[in-house]
Amino acid sequence: MNTLSKDTTLCISLAGRPSNLGTRFHNFLYAELGLDFVYKAFTTTDIVGAITGVRALGIRGTSVSMPFKEDVIALVDQMDASASAIDSVNTIVNDDGILTAYNTDYEAIATLLAEHALDPADSVLVRGSGGMAKAVVAAFRGAGFDDVTVVARNADRGPALADAYGYAWTPTDPAPGAAIIVNVTPLGMNGSDADVLSFTPEQIDAATTVMDVVAFPAETPLIRAARAAGRKTITGAEVIALQAARQFALYTGVALTPDQIARASAYSRE
Amino acid sequence: MNTLSKDTTLCISLAGRPSNLGTRFHNFLYAELGLDFVYKAFTTTDIVGAITGVRALGIRGTSVSMPFKEDVIALVDQMDASASAIDSVNTIVNDDGILTAYNTDYEAIATLLAEHALDPADSVLVRGSGGMAKAVVAAFRGAGFDDVTVVARNADRGPALADAYGYAWTPTDPAPGAAIIVNVTPLGMNGSDADVLSFTPEQIDAATTVMDVVAFPAETPLIRAARAAGRKTITGAEVIALQAARQFALYTGVALTPDQIARASAYSRE
Repeated sequence: MNTLSKDTTLCISLAGRPSNLGTRFHNFLYAELGLDFVYKAFTTTDIVGAITGVRALGIRGTSVSMPFKEDVIALVDQMDASASAIDSVNTIVNDDGILTAYNTDYEAIATLLAEHALDPADSVLVRGSGGMAKAVVAAFRGAGFDDVTVVARNADRGPALADAYGYAWTPTDPAPGAAIIVNVTPLGMNGSDADVLSFTPEQIDAATTVMDVVAFPAETPLIRAARAAGRKTITGAEVIALQAARQFALYTGVALTPDQIARASAYSRE
Repeated sequence: MNTLSKDTTLCISLAGRPSNLGTRFHNFLYAELGLDFVYKAFTTTDIVGAITGVRALGIRGTSVSMPFKEDVIALVDQMDASASAIDSVNTIVNDDGILTAYNTDYEAIATLLAEHALDPADSVLVRGSGGMAKAVVAAFRGAGFDDVTVVARNADRGPALADAYGYAWTPTDPAPGAAIIVNVTPLGMNGSDADVLSFTPEQIDAATTVMDVVAFPAETPLIRAARAAGRKTITGAEVIALQAARQFALYTGVALTPDQIARASAYSRE
C-alpha cells in the first residue's frame, strides 16, 4: 500500500536519458527512515518549463543531469560555491520558492580526494574534457594539486578546461609515469565501450592510484586491472553514492551513515 | 518499500486547499491493480506555471479544484463536451503533450440522475450558485428537466445560473412542494456549518428525492433527515466517488467495478 499524502514532499530528477538510480536510492532510504518524501525521475524537452513547474508545484529537490547542467544556471535564484566553481549544476534545492543550485558531483570528488589522502605533490593525468572532467579537474585544483595534465582529443574543450585551472593539456597520452590516473570518459562503461581499458597496462603499473568516474559497471576494466595490479582505486560507484548522499542531506536534512549509503547504493544498482 | 521507477506515470491534483481524498483513492487502486502509477495532491499560487510543469514533466493526469476550474480553460488544448457544457474543468488528461479538459463532476451527476431514474417531469429545487451548482443545473437540463428553480441569495450568480439553462431563480425559498431537492452549498459540511440542515423538514417531507453534494461527511444532516423520512437519497459521497472513478478511467484506461469504487472510496475517507 502506497502511503503518499497531500503533504508528502516530492523530489525529482531531470535528465535527457533518465536512469532508475536516483529513484531507487532515495526511495529506499525514505522508506527505511520513515521520511514522508517520494522521488521520481523525469525527462523533458522543455527545461525552462520543467523548472517553472518545480517552482509552481513546490518540488523540494531536483537532480539535474545531461544535457541540462548549464542551462539551469539562468533559471535558479542563487548558486552555491560548489556549482559556481565549475559553472555546472546537478542539484537544485527549493526553500520556500528560492532555488539554490549545487554541484554534489564536485563535492563528492573533492571529498573522495581528501578521504583517500591523495598527495597534492603527486602528478595527475585526467582523461576527458566533458562536464564531469571539469568537476574532477576543479577538485584537484581545490585540493592543491599543481601537476595535473588533461588528456583530451577535443582541441577546443581540452585546452579550455586545462587553462581554466592553470593545468597542461595534451591531445595524446604522455609516456607512463603519472602517479594518479583518472578516467572521465565513457570508456569502460556498459554499452559499446564496455570492454575498453581506458589507460594502458603500463600507465596503470606506473600509477599509485587509479580513479574511474564510470559508475556502471562499478568494476570497469580499468578498476579491475588496477585492483589486480594492487593499486589504490576510487570508483565511479563511490562518486555517485557520495553525491546522492549529499543530495539526500540537502533535500531532507538527514546525514546518512556510510552503512546507509552502501545499502541504498547497492539497492539502487540492482 | 516504494516501487517507483523512472517509468512510473505521475498524476496530480491542483487545489487551493488540497485534501487527501484523491491521493488515497487513486493510490489505493494503483496498488490493488498493480498499475505503475503514482498520485499526489499539490497546491500552487501559480496555476499557469503548474500547467506549464504538467506539460514539461509529462504529468499524465491533473485533477483541478477550486479556485482553478475556470483559469485552466485558457491553458489546455481542447475541451471535452463535459467541460465546455459548463465552462468549468476538473480534470486534464495529457496525451503526449496534448491537454484535454473534462468535467467529471458534471459527468458523475448526469450519471447519477440517470441511475436513480429521476423523472424529468418532476419539479426540482437546487440550492446554490457556485461552480458545482452549475454542474448540477446543467445535468438536470441535459436530463430533460423543465421545472427547475435555483434558490440562491447571490443576486448576480443566482439569476445568471438559472438564465443560462432556462430555469427560474428565487432569492428566498418557495413553499415546500418540490419533488427533488438538491443542496449544492456548504451547509451541513464538516466545519462551522456541520449542524445546519440545508432544507426544512417540511421541504424534505414534500420531496420524493433528496440530493446533497456535500461529501464530508457522507451523512450530512440533510441526508440523515431524508433517510429517516424514508426519502430516496443521492449523496455527495456518491458524486465524488463516481467522478474519481471517471478520472481513473481517463488516466489509466481501466474501468473500475462498483466494488472497487466502493472500497477505494471507503479507504479514501478513512
